[in-house]
Amino acid sequence: MMKTITDIYGVYADGIAAGIKPGKPDLAYIYVPKVVGAAGVFTTNRFQAACVQYTRKVMKRHLVKAVIINAGNANAATGDLGMKNARLTAQKAATLLGILPTEVAVASTGIIGVQLPMDKMESGLDRLLSGPPTHNGEAAATAIMTTDLVPKHAFAEAKIGKKIFQVAGIAKGSGMIAPNMATMLGFITTNATLDSPTLTRVLKEVVADTFNQISVDTDTSTNDMVLAFATGEHQFPETDKAAMAQFKSLLYDVCCDLAKAIARDGEGATKLIEVEVVRAATRSDATAIAHSVMNSPLVKTAIHGADPNWGRIVAAIGKTQNVKLNPEKVDISFGGIEVFKNGSPVSFDRAAVVALLKHPDVFIQIDLKLATGSAKVWGCDLTKGYIDINTEYS
Amino acid sequence: MMKTITDIYGVYADGIAAGIKPGKPDLAYIYVPKVVGAAGVFTTNRFQAACVQYTRKVMKRHLVKAVIINAGNANAATGDLGMKNARLTAQKAATLLGILPTEVAVASTGIIGVQLPMDKMESGLDRLLSGPPTHNGEAAATAIMTTDLVPKHAFAEAKIGKKIFQVAGIAKGSGMIAPNMATMLGFITTNATLDSPTLTRVLKEVVADTFNQISVDTDTSTNDMVLAFATGEHQFPETDKAAMAQFKSLLYDVCCDLAKAIARDGEGATKLIEVEVVRAATRSDATAIAHSVMNSPLVKTAIHGADPNWGRIVAAIGKTQNVKLNPEKVDISFGGIEVFKNGSPVSFDRAAVVALLKHPDVFIQIDLKLATGSAKVWGCDLTKGYIDINTEYS
Repeated sequence: MMKTITDIYGVYADGIAAGIKPGKPDLAYIYVPKVVGAAGVFTTNRFQAACVQYTRKVMKRHLVKAVIINAGNANAATGDLGMKNARLTAQKAATLLGILPTEVAVASTGIIGVQLPMDKMESGLDRLLSGPPTHNGEAAATAIMTTDLVPKHAFAEAKIGKKIFQVAGIAKGSGMIAPNMATMLGFITTNATLDSPTLTRVLKEVVADTFNQISVDTDTSTNDMVLAFATGEHQFPETDKAAMAQFKSLLYDVCCDLAKAIARDGEGATKLIEVEVVRAATRSDATAIAHSVMNSPLVKTAIHGADPNWGRIVAAIGKTQNVKLNPEKVDISFGGIEVFKNGSPVSFDRAAVVALLKHPDVFIQIDLKLATGSAKVWGCDLTKGYIDINTEYS
Repeated sequence: MMKTITDIYGVYADGIAAGIKPGKPDLAYIYVPKVVGAAGVFTTNRFQAACVQYTRKVMKRHLVKAVIINAGNANAATGDLGMKNARLTAQKAATLLGILPTEVAVASTGIIGVQLPMDKMESGLDRLLSGPPTHNGEAAATAIMTTDLVPKHAFAEAKIGKKIFQVAGIAKGSGMIAPNMATMLGFITTNATLDSPTLTRVLKEVVADTFNQISVDTDTSTNDMVLAFATGEHQFPETDKAAMAQFKSLLYDVCCDLAKAIARDGEGATKLIEVEVVRAATRSDATAIAHSVMNSPLVKTAIHGADPNWGRIVAAIGKTQNVKLNPEKVDISFGGIEVFKNGSPVSFDRAAVVALLKHPDVFIQIDLKLATGSAKVWGCDLTKGYIDINTEYS
């Protein structure tokens, strides 16, 4: 059994089928009664779902203890009624948990532009929250899935100072996944006593290198959010820089595992692709080029066909706007086998590269030989499965 | 029979199968012996194919009279040998046509990273150019095709002053089609006496509104180029602003027809999609938002499935970076039927919209109600055909 968010002392969660998505689990909660810090990172999409607007506002002023998550309906582009429904959801949950409405965040995922079915939400919350709180992180991870094929968990722990500090997370995401924000739903818990500002700072740093570096289809959702809750089980030496670096590394491991799990479970995907750009002029150049390659439908389809068509990678590098590039210095490798060096083709063992490209994990390395900027991004191949899923979604 | 480039007096062209692409026409020429002006617009991809580098350089200093175009091989990312082969191609053609090597441009399209088969190129040029020049624009348009399913021609004429001025064009393009440059091969001829600087200026303006506003798959090629040749049959009143505006309008019609033909023939496409953004803060904002919607795989697959899932359009508008947007003012229509008004859903006749989305031409209108910036872009739906073509290309 994989460890998950409720394996951290003081974290409760569960999920049920409330009828929002016919026949499937679709309503979950996470509850940390003794929370000491909470942090949120939200979508940069300009049309922000009602749940994003609501949760953002609440978290600015209050320490949230719980989040209610529904799948099957995004509560996005739903106008004033959508905002009212987000508020009603929080109020109802607060009453059932015996806490303040301002202590409850809400998150939604699913179809855009349809009002939340509040009758099902309310009767679902009654069932979900009326019993004693449970440690069912598995059920929560399952209830937040949309087109995901697998629930996504991650867990990491390390001794920092004299205590074992733990970080755990669950996430969902499969389509409408692109850089520029959290681009999915992720919920992280830790037993460290980090206050909200500290947790927010480190979460933002880690999200930039993990969830923001995945792309399934370039489409940034209106609903993305990553929330983190600190239970405060063990006192954490916040002022100790080395300890904070260790904590950040734990958080990175959890977020990176979840991010890769989302990319691997991209709609229709058969492969996880990692694109690493090294020796770019800056980190931001490396990121832009890595995303340009990762988002190229021609690269994605070539990898799907296990075709070492590096020309498409060359084109995708070259189309990146506003980055430093010396075409005559560029090297490209697949899983360590060089196919392009100093801007020119090199002969390589085609059969060996095809064999690498048939693996479920594909690695593309690009060396620009300019300076020290580097970035890794993760995505997936583009297949007929993606077309099937998205032609027939609504 | 459609009118084409060789229906302009003084323009010669032909195409043959030279064996570069097994069993298909793949080598063409266009020759304007008495050319008075020539203009070129080239890819912005940083890896420029040898043919682009060569032609760009030649056209900076010389008035070109002819272009040799091959399909089946892009001569891109081919290093010094690629440059040498581009030069050899121009030299061989010049000898056969009895003109100077600096009067010959070259263009290539096809796979990246493979050297041009010069034996086939040379024997092909011998066959193509040793007889008397012909007016076979149809054959030229066919020989430049790659994954295109149809050859693409356009023709427009109007009386300007006392003479009939004509503009004609051929183009190829189906995959690796994206904004930010010519994004395909296009060859335009006109009987107006426009010199190179004037022709270049007006061509650049028109390309910005036509070829640069199409996107099949966001991938900008290393080989894009649009060349225009003026035969000088009729003296053109270059200093007459109204006449120049009329000429620009003719050139727009031809380039727009070709651009739409490319989008309609996008790899795997079943539909031409037009996205029009009006009342944006600026033209550049309108263009950015229109491309964001057009390039969204989720929008493209929804249209493929005739699914009026406007939520995906909302998300694609909202993810556009660095544009002015007031989400509460945004309206969205499909072919004139409003589905989203002032940032909120409106009830609409779903069956009527589904019927519109089943047409081979789909129109999406977005009104931002901010100022007067507007833009139109063209693209196509995303289908399993695209995956098939690009998984098995090389």
